[in-house]
Amino acid sequence: MDGWGAVLRAFRDGTLDEAGALERLKTLSFEDLGFAKVDHHRALRQGFPEVIFCPGKAAEHITAIAEKLLKAGGPGLLATRADEAAYEAVRRAAPDAIYQTIARLVEVRRAAPAPLPGTVGIVSAGSADIPVAEEAALVAEALGCRTDRIYDVGVAGLHRLLAQLERLSAASVLIVAAGMEGALPSVVGGLVDCPVIAVPTSVGYGASFGGLSALLGMLSSCAAGVGVMNIDNGFGAAMLATKILRGK
Amino acid sequence: MDGWGAVLRAFRDGTLDEAGALERLKTLSFEDLGFAKVDHHRALRQGFPEVIFCPGKAAEHITAIAEKLLKAGGPGLLATRADEAAYEAVRRAAPDAIYQTIARLVEVRRAAPAPLPGTVGIVSAGSADIPVAEEAALVAEALGCRTDRIYDVGVAGLHRLLAQLERLSAASVLIVAAGMEGALPSVVGGLVDCPVIAVPTSVGYGASFGGLSALLGMLSSCAAGVGVMNIDNGFGAAMLATKILRGK
Amino acid sequence: MDGWGAVLRAFRDGTLDEAGALERLKTLSFEDLGFAKVDHHRALRQGFPEVIFCPGKAAEHITAIAEKLLKAGGPGLLATRADEAAYEAVRRAAPDAIYQTIARLVEVRRAAPAPLPGTVGIVSAGSADIPVAEEAALVAEALGCRTDRIYDVGVAGLHRLLAQLERLSAASVLIVAAGMEGALPSVVGGLVDCPVIAVPTSVGYGASFGGLSALLGMLSSCAAGVGVMNIDNGFGAAMLATKILRGK
Amino acid sequence: MDGWGAVLRAFRDGTLDEAGALERLKTLSFEDLGFAKVDHHRALRQGFPEVIFCPGKAAEHITAIAEKLLKAGGPGLLATRADEAAYEAVRRAAPDAIYQTIARLVEVRRAAPAPLPGTVGIVSAGSADIPVAEEAALVAEALGCRTDRIYDVGVAGLHRLLAQLERLSAASVLIVAAGMEGALPSVVGGLVDCPVIAVPTSVGYGASFGGLSALLGMLSSCAAGVGVMNIDNGFGAAMLATKILRGK
Amino acid sequence: MDGWGAVLRAFRDGTLDEAGALERLKTLSFEDLGFAKVDHHRALRQGFPEVIFCPGKAAEHITAIAEKLLKAGGPGLLATRADEAAYEAVRRAAPDAIYQTIARLVEVRRAAPAPLPGTVGIVSAGSADIPVAEEAALVAEALGCRTDRIYDVGVAGLHRLLAQLERLSAASVLIVAAGMEGALPSVVGGLVDCPVIAVPTSVGYGASFGGLSALLGMLSSCAAGVGVMNIDNGFGAAMLATKILRGK
Amino acid sequence: MDGWGAVLRAFRDGTLDEAGALERLKTLSFEDLGFAKVDHHRALRQGFPEVIFCPGKAAEHITAIAEKLLKAGGPGLLATRADEAAYEAVRRAAPDAIYQTIARLVEVRRAAPAPLPGTVGIVSAGSADIPVAEEAALVAEALGCRTDRIYDVGVAGLHRLLAQLERLSAASVLIVAAGMEGALPSVVGGLVDCPVIAVPTSVGYGASFGGLSALLGMLSSCAAGVGVMNIDNGFGAAMLATKILRGK
Amino acid sequence: MDGWGAVLRAFRDGTLDEAGALERLKTLSFEDLGFAKVDHHRALRQGFPEVIFCPGKAAEHITAIAEKLLKAGGPGLLATRADEAAYEAVRRAAPDAIYQTIARLVEVRRAAPAPLPGTVGIVSAGSADIPVAEEAALVAEALGCRTDRIYDVGVAGLHRLLAQLERLSAASVLIVAAGMEGALPSVVGGLVDCPVIAVPTSVGYGASFGGLSALLGMLSSCAAGVGVMNIDNGFGAAMLATKILRGK
Amino acid sequence: MDGWGAVLRAFRDGTLDEAGALERLKTLSFEDLGFAKVDHHRALRQGFPEVIFCPGKAAEHITAIAEKLLKAGGPGLLATRADEAAYEAVRRAAPDAIYQTIARLVEVRRAAPAPLPGTVGIVSAGSADIPVAEEAALVAEALGCRTDRIYDVGVAGLHRLLAQLERLSAASVLIVAAGMEGALPSVVGGLVDCPVIAVPTSVGYGASFGGLSALLGMLSSCAAGVGVMNIDNGFGAAMLATKILRGK
Repeated sequence: MDGWGAVLRAFRDGTLDEAGALERLKTLSFEDLGFAKVDHHRALRQGFPEVIFCPGKAAEHITAIAEKLLKAGGPGLLATRADEAAYEAVRRAAPDAIYQTIARLVEVRRAAPAPLPGTVGIVSAGSADIPVAEEAALVAEALGCRTDRIYDVGVAGLHRLLAQLERLSAASVLIVAAGMEGALPSVVGGLVDCPVIAVPTSVGYGASFGGLSALLGMLSSCAAGVGVMNIDNGFGAAMLATKILRGK
Repeated sequence: MDGWGAVLRAFRDGTLDEAGALERLKTLSFEDLGFAKVDHHRALRQGFPEVIFCPGKAAEHITAIAEKLLKAGGPGLLATRADEAAYEAVRRAAPDAIYQTIARLVEVRRAAPAPLPGTVGIVSAGSADIPVAEEAALVAEALGCRTDRIYDVGVAGLHRLLAQLERLSAASVLIVAAGMEGALPSVVGGLVDCPVIAVPTSVGYGASFGGLSALLGMLSSCAAGVGVMNIDNGFGAAMLATKILRGK
Repeated sequence: MDGWGAVLRAFRDGTLDEAGALERLKTLSFEDLGFAKVDHHRALRQGFPEVIFCPGKAAEHITAIAEKLLKAGGPGLLATRADEAAYEAVRRAAPDAIYQTIARLVEVRRAAPAPLPGTVGIVSAGSADIPVAEEAALVAEALGCRTDRIYDVGVAGLHRLLAQLERLSAASVLIVAAGMEGALPSVVGGLVDCPVIAVPTSVGYGASFGGLSALLGMLSSCAAGVGVMNIDNGFGAAMLATKILRGK
Repeated sequence: MDGWGAVLRAFRDGTLDEAGALERLKTLSFEDLGFAKVDHHRALRQGFPEVIFCPGKAAEHITAIAEKLLKAGGPGLLATRADEAAYEAVRRAAPDAIYQTIARLVEVRRAAPAPLPGTVGIVSAGSADIPVAEEAALVAEALGCRTDRIYDVGVAGLHRLLAQLERLSAASVLIVAAGMEGALPSVVGGLVDCPVIAVPTSVGYGASFGGLSALLGMLSSCAAGVGVMNIDNGFGAAMLATKILRGK
Repeated sequence: MDGWGAVLRAFRDGTLDEAGALERLKTLSFEDLGFAKVDHHRALRQGFPEVIFCPGKAAEHITAIAEKLLKAGGPGLLATRADEAAYEAVRRAAPDAIYQTIARLVEVRRAAPAPLPGTVGIVSAGSADIPVAEEAALVAEALGCRTDRIYDVGVAGLHRLLAQLERLSAASVLIVAAGMEGALPSVVGGLVDCPVIAVPTSVGYGASFGGLSALLGMLSSCAAGVGVMNIDNGFGAAMLATKILRGK
Repeated sequence: MDGWGAVLRAFRDGTLDEAGALERLKTLSFEDLGFAKVDHHRALRQGFPEVIFCPGKAAEHITAIAEKLLKAGGPGLLATRADEAAYEAVRRAAPDAIYQTIARLVEVRRAAPAPLPGTVGIVSAGSADIPVAEEAALVAEALGCRTDRIYDVGVAGLHRLLAQLERLSAASVLIVAAGMEGALPSVVGGLVDCPVIAVPTSVGYGASFGGLSALLGMLSSCAAGVGVMNIDNGFGAAMLATKILRGK
Repeated sequence: MDGWGAVLRAFRDGTLDEAGALERLKTLSFEDLGFAKVDHHRALRQGFPEVIFCPGKAAEHITAIAEKLLKAGGPGLLATRADEAAYEAVRRAAPDAIYQTIARLVEVRRAAPAPLPGTVGIVSAGSADIPVAEEAALVAEALGCRTDRIYDVGVAGLHRLLAQLERLSAASVLIVAAGMEGALPSVVGGLVDCPVIAVPTSVGYGASFGGLSALLGMLSSCAAGVGVMNIDNGFGAAMLATKILRGK
Repeated sequence: MDGWGAVLRAFRDGTLDEAGALERLKTLSFEDLGFAKVDHHRALRQGFPEVIFCPGKAAEHITAIAEKLLKAGGPGLLATRADEAAYEAVRRAAPDAIYQTIARLVEVRRAAPAPLPGTVGIVSAGSADIPVAEEAALVAEALGCRTDRIYDVGVAGLHRLLAQLERLSAASVLIVAAGMEGALPSVVGGLVDCPVIAVPTSVGYGASFGGLSALLGMLSSCAAGVGVMNIDNGFGAAMLATKILRGK
C-alpha cells in the first residue's frame, strides 16, 4: 500500500481526482517515530487532535510525540491520565501547557475549537466522582462543547437530583458519572429524553470491586438506551458526547 | 451433653431451677430421623415453625419431616422452593396444605400466628420480581406480619415510585426486591427512615449474571443502612423483617 | 403527590398554567393493574411506546398490559425477548401482532412512526450475531429510523469490512454487534467519525463466557468514544441510536 | 422545583398547610457548595447528622462541608474512613474533633444523642476484625445506642462463644463482624432470636480474596434472616441497627 | 522405555533383582485399549482398585474398561458419577454390579477389602448434602474403612452438633460435607483433634454459586489444618481418608 | 475500494502487474449472500477451505453457504460443532458429506489435500478429552497433516505417559488436550523440543468451572513456550499446527 | 456457663468425676484480655501451643498475648506471617524468640516437642515456592515432626522429580507447594501411596492471579485424594500433616 | 533411578550404547544446590540455555545459579523480569552482563547463537506494549532468530497497520502484543498465513482488569489458529516462536 508521495504524484498525474486524493490522505497519513506512529491527520479525519494516553509511556516518548503533533499545526493536544512527570514531558515540547490536576489532564490549546451546538450536561453522583466528571467536562470543552456541571446529586438524596430537573432536561446529551452501585444513570435515564452516557467510577466501599459493581449496574440499567463507558473513562464519554453533538 | 430426660430429672431433683430447665430445653431438643434431625422446639426457641427448604430433598424425606413436625403440634409449617412433587409430598402428611404457585411456597396453617405490630412493606421494581416479593410477603404473613404490597415501581419510572411515597413512609420495615441493576433499595433507602432489606433477584438482561449485578449494587448502595439478602431469597428477608417487628 | 384529576382541576382553576399542567402530566401518568403500573404517557414523555420485556412475565399479565397500552391509543407496542407463548399472549390483545422470529420481537403497529433524519447502520461481525443485530434494526425502524444492514464483516476477513467503507461512512450512527473477542467496534470506531454503539453478543467458543469476553473487549476498546450496551441488548442499542438521531 | 423560600411563602399565604410545609422542607432542603450539596435537614428527615465519607475527597472540601454542617447546628458530625489528613481537615472546622484511630473515625459531638431503647451487641470473630467492629460500635453510640462489645469469639474456639451466650441473648440486635470464612453470623444466628447484621471483613489468608469469601458465606448463611453489609462496612451496620432500635 | 516382558526377562537373566523387578512392574504396567489405558497394577501400587469416573465416557467404553479390570482379578471396581446408562454399561461386564442411587455409585465387589484400623466419621450439614456424604461413605467402606454417619448437624442448630460431640471425638478422621456457607468444618475442626477433610457441596440459595461460597469458606477456615476437596467430591475425600488410615 | 472487476480491468490495462493483481484478488474476493459473505478465495489466500462454525446459524443458511462454497470448487469444506440438524443442512448441499459424531465435525472432501511434511501428535489426558482431541486430529488430517493419536496418558499415571516418550519425541508439533487441572502440557512441554499447543477441555469435577481451571493452568504453565487455545477448541489447535507445518 | 473455679470445686465436692472435670477443662478454659481471649488449654485439648496469626494485630496486643501464653507454661509459641515489628513485639515478651526470615515465622521454644513417628516430606516446585515450603517445614518441626525437604522439582523438568522418587516414597505424608499451574501435586499424587497435602502458592506470571490458577488446578487434580490448603498456607499444611502423623 | 556416574560406567561396560547413553544424559543431568537444581544439559536437550525467572528469588541464589550455569559453559544465560538488584546479582557472577531496561532482561552472551532460518515479526498495538514486545524480541534474538519490529499499529488506526502489510506477510511467525481489547491478533491473523502468537499485555483503562480483557479476547479470536500466551509473557512467546522456526 502506498504512502504520502504516491498519492500526491497520482493526483498530479491525474490518476487520482481531488476527492480521491483527499480520501487517501485521510486514510493513510502518519509519521513513524519507530516507537510510535504519529497521526497528523486524525484532526482532518475525525475532527479531533491526537490525544496522548500517558500511562506506560516513557517521558522522552511523550515529549517527542508532543513535539511532532504540535509542529504539524492543528488546534493543540490533550494528554490524559497525566502525572506530574508527564506534565513536565509535555511542557518540554509546549511551555504553554496547562495541567488540570483534579482531572489529571494536560492541555495545549493553540486555537479555539469550533463551537458545537447544544450542551453536554456532566452529572456526578458524589463529590468523589468529580475527578472523572472533570476529565469528561474538560475534554468536551477542549473539543468545542458547551458544558453544564451538575455535581453531587446521587440517588440516596433524591431531592437534590429532582431540584436539577430543569438543567437535566435542557441538556442535549448527559454524561453521568457514579461509583458505588451506579444507580444514577438509571434514574436520570428515566427522567430525560436525550442520550445518556454512563461512566462507572472506581469509588466505593468493599465489594464495589474498583468500579465493577457500578459497571455491571449501568450495563443492566432498567432505563433503556444508556451507553456505558469503561470504569473512570471520562475521556471516552466526552468523545462520544462530542460525536453525538457534531451530528451529520 | 445430656438430653431431654436428664434435664427433666435434674429439674425434679432440684439441681436445675425452672429458668435453667427451660433454657436447657430450648437448647437441646430435636428428634433424630437418621437422614434429618427435626427440631420441635425451634418454635419455642425462635418463635417460628421449622421451615423445610425443599431443593435436594427426596419426596419421602419431605413427607416424613412434615409428619413429625405436625405431630409435635405448633402453628403449622412452611415448605419453600417447592415444586409440584414437593407439594404432593407435604400433602401426604397434611391434606390441608396450600400451594402458592407464584411464590413456590407450601403452607400448612394449624393456628393463626400471633399478630405482630407494624407493617412490612413489600416493594418490587418490576413485575418479573413478583415471585420473590410474593415469597417474602406470604412468609411474613404466615409469621404474623401485616403486609403492604407495592409492586412495579422501578427507578426508570420515578413518578410511579414517588406516587407511593406515603405508603412507603407508613411501613415499619421495607423489603425491596429488584433485579437488573438493583438500584431501587438505594432510592427507597434515601426516602424513608425505617430499616430497608434489599433482595436482589435473578431477573435481567445479559451481564446481570443471574442477579450478581443487583447483589453487588445493593451491597454498594449509597444509602446507608441497607441490609442485603442472597439472590432471590425472599424467605430470608421475611425472617429478618419479622425479627425486627418482634422487637425486644 | 397528586394524580391526573388534581392536575386537570388545578389547570381549570388557573393555579397551573398550560405548560405546568403538561409537565405534570408528563411526570405523573400511569395506570395501576396491581401487578404492573402501565405507563400511558411515556410515548408523550419519551416519544416512544411502552415496550414489554417478556421474560419472567406470566402470559395473562402480558395480555393485560398489551390491552391497556393499546386502548390508550398511541403508535403501537413492542414486546422483546418474546417466545411463542408471549406472541400468543400479545395476539389475544392484538390479532394484528407480527412475530419477528429471528429477532424474537412482537410488533403491533397502529400508526407509522414519525420518520427521523439520518441513517442507523447496523453492523454484525458474523452471521451468528444476526439475531441481536435484527432486534436492533427492527426496533430502530419501529421508532422511525431508516436503517442500513451491513452483516458478516468480522475483522478476521478485513477485506469484507473495508469493501463496505462507503456505507459505514454514510451512517449517522452505527450499531455494531459482535461476539467472540468483540474487536469489530474498535476497528469500525477507527474508520468512521459518527457515534458507535457496541453490542456484545453471547456468541463464541469456550472462554468467551457467554459474551463476557466481547463485553470486556468493547469496554476496553482502543477506539475512543464507543458506547457499550449489555450482552445481546440490541433493543437498548436501538433506543440509544434513536435518541441520538432525534437530536435537540 | 421550588426551594426553601417558596415553601415558606406558600405556607404564609395559606396555599400550603403546616403538615405540607414540613413535608416539603423535609424533602427539599440542602445547600449548594458547587462541588457538594450539603444536606442540613437530613438530621430532621432521618434523625441522623450528615456523615462525611472521606476517601476521594480533597481536604479543603472536607473542611468546607464540616463548617457548613456545624454552622447549621445539630448534634454534631461523623467522618468515616478518615486518615490523619482528613482528621486535620475536620479539625480546621471543629477544634474539638476527636479521632478514633482504630476505627478511623472522626467525631464532633455538640449535643448528646437521644438515647435509644435496647442494646446493640457488637461481636467480632477475631482480634483482627476489631477495627470494623469498633467503627460499628462508635457510630452506634454516636447515634444514641447502648452497646455491648463481645470480641474474639470465633467459631474455631466454640467454648469462647458459648461462654457469652447470656450477653448474646440479651442484645436487641447483633452486629457480627468476621473475616476468613465468615461463619460466625451463621452460628450466632442459630443461637439467638433477635435480628443479626453480618459484616464481612477483609481479614484472611490467601483465597479469602479481600473479604469475598466471608461475604459469600454470610449471604449463603444457613441461619435464616441474617442481613448482610458490604465488606468492612461497620458504619452501615450501625446505621441499620439504629433504625431497627428506633422502631416505629 | 521397556514393558512387562523386558522386565521379566531381565529378572530371569539376573540383571534385575526381585526388588527392582517389583518396582518396575509397579511403575510400568497397563493395558492399552486405544481409547484408554487400563491400569491393572494400580491395585498393587496404590492398594486400591481402578475407579471409573463416568461422565463423558461412552457406554461401550465403560463396559470394555470394566471387563478388562475384572478379568485381571482384584477386589472389584467402583464407577462414580454413574447415571442409569453407566450402571447398565457396567452390568454388561458384571451382572452382580450394585447401583447406589443416592450416591450415584456402581460397585462390583469380588473380595472383601482388608479392614483398616480406626473409623471415618462422615458428617453432613444438611440432608441435601447427603448424596455427597454417601459417596464418601460408600467409597470408604469399599476400601476397607469402618464408617460412622453423622448427618444433618449444621451450625445453625448448634445443639444438634454438640449432641454428637462424643461420636465426633471418637473418629480417627472426619469427612465434613456442607453447602451454603460451608461453616461446619470450621466448627468441627475447633472441636476435635483428628484430621478434618472438608467437602463443599453445590447445595444452596442464590449467591452460593454452585458450591463456590462453601469452597472459599472452607479454604479460608479459621480452624487450622483442614484439607479441602473439590466441590461435591465425596470420592476424593474417601480416598484421602483411606490413605490416612492406612498409615505407614 | 474496488472489487473483482476493477482489478481485472486494471490488470488488462496494464496499471496493475500480475503480482499486484493476484495480491488484490487475494485481499478482496468474496460473495455476498446478504446474511453472510462467502469467501471463495480464502483457500487461495490462506491455503484452507472456508470452515463453517455451526452454532447459532440457521439450517437454511448453512445449506446456502455450503452450496456457494462447493460450487466455487476447491478441496471441500468442514463444518464444526455440528449437531444432527447441521449435518442434514450440509447434506442437502453435499450428499457425500460425512459426519464424525465424536468430534461433531462434518466433512466434504472433494480433493485430497496436499500432504504436509512432519507429524502432528495429538495427546489426550483422559478418555473424556477424546472429543476435543478428535476434532483436532480430523481437522489436521483434512488439511493435509499426518497425525499420531496418543490418548489417555494423564499425569496421575506418569508411567503411561513415559511409555510414549518415543512417539512424543518423534512429532513435529504436539497438540495436548486436557481437562481438570490441565497439567499435561506442562509435563509434555518439559519432555520434548517441538512446539506444544495446549487445549483446555471442559472436563472435570466441581471447581474446574467448565474448563477454566485447565485454561488458567495452561496459561501459567511452568514449561516455557506453550501456546494456549480456547476451551475445547480442537479446531483452532489444528489450524495452528497446520500453519506451523507449512512453514515458510 | 461456668469457668475454671466452678469446675474444680465441683470436682472437689464430688459432683464431677475426674474424667468429667478434665473434659470440662478441655472445653472451657481461656483468659479474657478484652481485645482477645487467650486459650491456655488448647495445648491440652489439641496438643499444640496457641499460634499467633500476626497480620492486623497491634504490636502491643501481640506482646500481651505472648506474655499470657508463656506465663501459662507449655512448650512455647509460634507467630506466623510475622514482619520485623511483630518479631520485636514477641521479643518483648520472650527475649529468646527466634525469627525465621524466609518463612516469616517467630518461634519461642521452651521445651522440645514430643517426637512424632514417620516423616513429613516437604516438596516445592520452584525455588520461589520455598518461603511457603519453609513455613510448613518449620511449623511441622516445632510440632515434633521429622521432615525431609525436596525442593525445586517442578514438572517441567521431570527428571529432577523422578530422581527423588525414593525420598518421596519414604515419606509418611507429603506437603507439596507449587505456584503457576500447580501441577506438581497431581504428578506426585500419582507416584506415591501416602496422603498428599497440596499448597498453592502465589508465585507466577500474569494470569496466575495471585495463586488462583494453582489453587483451581490442585482442587481439580486428576490424582485422587489430594487435600488442598488455601493459597500460601504452609502453616495449615503443617497442622494437617501433624494431625495425620499423630494418628489415633 | 541412576545418575551421571552410573550412565557413564554403563556406557564403558557396554550395557548402554552411545545413543542410549546420550538419551540418558539428556534426561537426567542437573546439579543440586539445595535451594535449586541447576540444569546443565537443558541446552543439549532443548537447545536453549537455562533462563532464570527472577521474581521471588533471593539475590544470592541468583548469583549462585548464574555461576553454576556459566561454569558449565554453553552459550550464556538470560534473566527475565529482572530489577536492578537482580541485575547486580547476575553481574557478581558475570561482569559482562548487559541489562536491557525496557524489557527488564539481563543477558550474558558467551557465544553467538546458531542463526535460525526465517524471521520473527514482533508487532505491538501501542507504544505502551513495547516492554512486552521488546522482551519477546530480545529473547528471540538471543536464541538465534532474526526479528522485525513493527510497533504502534493498533486497530483503531487501521491505515497504520495496513501500511505494514508487506512486512507482516514476509514474517515466518508473528508475535503480536496488545493490551486493552486485544483485537490486533484477530486482525493480523486474518491478513497473514503464518502462525500468530498472541500476547495480551496488562495495558489498559478501567475494566481491562490487568490484561484479562485482552487475554479473553485473544482466546476468543475469530481468526482461527492463534496461540495465546499468558499476560505480559513476551519470553514465552519468543520460546514458542523459536521452536517453530527450528522446525524438525
